[in-house]
Amino acid sequence: SKRFSNIHHQHLRYNPLRDTWVLVSAHRMKRPWAGQVEKPPEEHVPRHDPHNPLCPGNTRANGEINPDYDSTFLFENDFPALQPDAPDPGSGQHPLFQSRAARGVCKVMCFHPWSDVTLPLMKKEEVVKVIDKWAELVEELGSTYPWVQIFENKGAMMGCSNPHPHCQVWASNFLPNEPALSDRCQRAFHQKHGEPLLLQYAKQEAEKKERVVVETSDWLAVVPYWATWPYQTLLLPRRHVLRINDLTAEEREGLADIMRRLLTKYDNLFEISFPYSMGWHGAPTGPHLTEDNSHWQLHAHYYPPLLRSATVKKFMVGYEMLAQEQRDLTPEQAAEKLRNLSEEHYKTRDN
Amino acid sequence: SKRFSNIHHQHLRYNPLRDTWVLVSAHRMKRPWAGQVEKPPEEHVPRHDPHNPLCPGNTRANGEINPDYDSTFLFENDFPALQPDAPDPGSGQHPLFQSRAARGVCKVMCFHPWSDVTLPLMKKEEVVKVIDKWAELVEELGSTYPWVQIFENKGAMMGCSNPHPHCQVWASNFLPNEPALSDRCQRAFHQKHGEPLLLQYAKQEAEKKERVVVETSDWLAVVPYWATWPYQTLLLPRRHVLRINDLTAEEREGLADIMRRLLTKYDNLFEISFPYSMGWHGAPTGPHLTEDNSHWQLHAHYYPPLLRSATVKKFMVGYEMLAQEQRDLTPEQAAEKLRNLSEEHYKTRDN
Ligand SMILES: O=P(O)(O)O[C@H]1O[C@H](CO)[C@@H](O)[C@H](O)[C@H]1O
Ligand SMILES: O=P(O)(O)O[C@H]1O[C@H](CO)[C@@H](O)[C@H](O)[C@H]1O
Repeated sequence: SKRFSNIHHQHLRYNPLRDTWVLVSAHRMKRPWAGQVEKPPEEHVPRHDPHNPLCPGNTRANGEINPDYDSTFLFENDFPALQPDAPDPGSGQHPLFQSRAARGVCKVMCFHPWSDVTLPLMKKEEVVKVIDKWAELVEELGSTYPWVQIFENKGAMMGCSNPHPHCQVWASNFLPNEPALSDRCQRAFHQKHGEPLLLQYAKQEAEKKERVVVETSDWLAVVPYWATWPYQTLLLPRRHVLRINDLTAEEREGLADIMRRLLTKYDNLFEISFPYSMGWHGAPTGPHLTEDNSHWQLHAHYYPPLLRSATVKKFMVGYEMLAQEQRDLTPEQAAEKLRNLSEEHYKTRDN
Repeated sequence: SKRFSNIHHQHLRYNPLRDTWVLVSAHRMKRPWAGQVEKPPEEHVPRHDPHNPLCPGNTRANGEINPDYDSTFLFENDFPALQPDAPDPGSGQHPLFQSRAARGVCKVMCFHPWSDVTLPLMKKEEVVKVIDKWAELVEELGSTYPWVQIFENKGAMMGCSNPHPHCQVWASNFLPNEPALSDRCQRAFHQKHGEPLLLQYAKQEAEKKERVVVETSDWLAVVPYWATWPYQTLLLPRRHVLRINDLTAEEREGLADIMRRLLTKYDNLFEISFPYSMGWHGAPTGPHLTEDNSHWQLHAHYYPPLLRSATVKKFMVGYEMLAQEQRDLTPEQAAEKLRNLSEEHYKTRDN
């Protein structure tokens, strides 16, 4: 019988954070692409656009005027999916028609006063300010809400309707599906192996090296063994850290450093401002603050859609939606490609 | 305190087939959209394109020549994600680096010799032939493979690279994530309530009516109570049926009828050939054929991406990927809209 090669032979890989499997079929990369081509990201964004509701000094949809901010800027989402005061749908429901109250807040946070920068193009000190603000928000909103989801949709391809560098923070009175699942998986691993899942994982990856994209003394960015998106990465501290607000000043500097390096590589991959959705997962908050959450480890997920070029993305459609996620290049191939890219941003490189 | 209204107040709804929740925030529909706009689907597809590898008589990527078929036409996918003979990655793995052998076959099935038709524009007898072929494939591949996934990616927006009407069939030596989850949920419900989940659900919806889109004596198409995609539907037989090959000739006729009616409504919604991914879920096969699968009920899921118009889709991004799916109009609103649409296709309507 033939010898197994993960480049030539499709196989399944287990995602221990979600208790699911991904189908890896690297030989599919040979397939020609005649399908939909995406518009490449807008590369000529003006520094200040008088009509952009996220720029300093401009008026937003609800009539409020933004201050002349010169660092980060936080405000309530003008079209929030979660509001603090929704009434309860009531109890005594049929098991197939169950609903629950959803309450929360949705905030938007601008990273910088300029529309023509992104995190990898910002100064390290400026990125540290973003991290500090994230930590502050988790501290504040997490004092009552069980879950505070920080996420960034970057690029029109990822449903982002505004090129100004920003993220969102949605806090809720419920633990959403994804963190609830991740909590279950991390807890079970911890119980069985006596060590937090992602702490063990980071150690293993730091030794194996083949999936590492960038590393610093405190942080590790890898294409996880179970990645579904072509260039998906997982960003992890090496120390056991429950939540982003537990990071020391030094670790925040290190995080700003590794984020800038990882995102520079992303942008350099196809020489475009790389689209992605990213977000932070840390131990639950609010009522969970007093529980034992030592099975948790802080981490960020980056989910970028592009596969072959600036305009050809991976579609997670039919088989993926109905059956199981499938990927076309191995995580090791993706990691190698990213690892070998320059850490100097293509936009600021001398030519 | 305010009275709860599912149109005005965000809330969570439970998906009993996946054991997950969806956040429904109907008030978000008021939000203006300044983000990415999709290309509307190509409406002028030639009946026969000499360069289209799916048309009768043409040559495919691997050099094979298609027969001059005049009904359905089945062939092996030229770039299969699953092949029958992949070697085993081996055992004795670390719990965080687990892989498994994946074996299977990927087939493509053309619905019709013409590129300029789609299921709702085909004759009822022609759609019955598609259904018969689906049943045949489940019978054949299901004799050994535990799962046979029939799915259709329709439209460039859904990663479909060819306008010729076709679907795919991927059979695997493993039960993929989604059917495995659905199996667990249906089994637990059956054990607890003594009735198959989807049989009870269909009865309830047929009485309630508010989420019904189309119905016949044998079939029901509803926007499920827990729908995540804006115009998602669930297509169900009223009788207890485990697999598509168990359908009687009459039920297949009824299915052709309801599919044509449902898909005509979809096309009429924005007067375009409506993009979607759809697929069938039935009781597992292969080694599971001899097990008790009475908790299962055959059904099809339709997942269409469009939200507001032919060019504005719902993005399942940041919050959805990292936390939980969120929808912007209620399932009842979507069902009402679809229900009230004509069953005469906009392309064949007299004007
Ligand atoms: O095989 P196709 O149609 O070229 O490919 C399409 O469907 C597959 C199955 O859902 C996906 O994995 C691909 O990303 C998508 O582009
Ligand atoms: O709030 P935004 O950025 O306008 O909206 C975007 O992100 C949300 C959260 O991931 C999604 O629900 C929307 O579909 C997407 O368009």
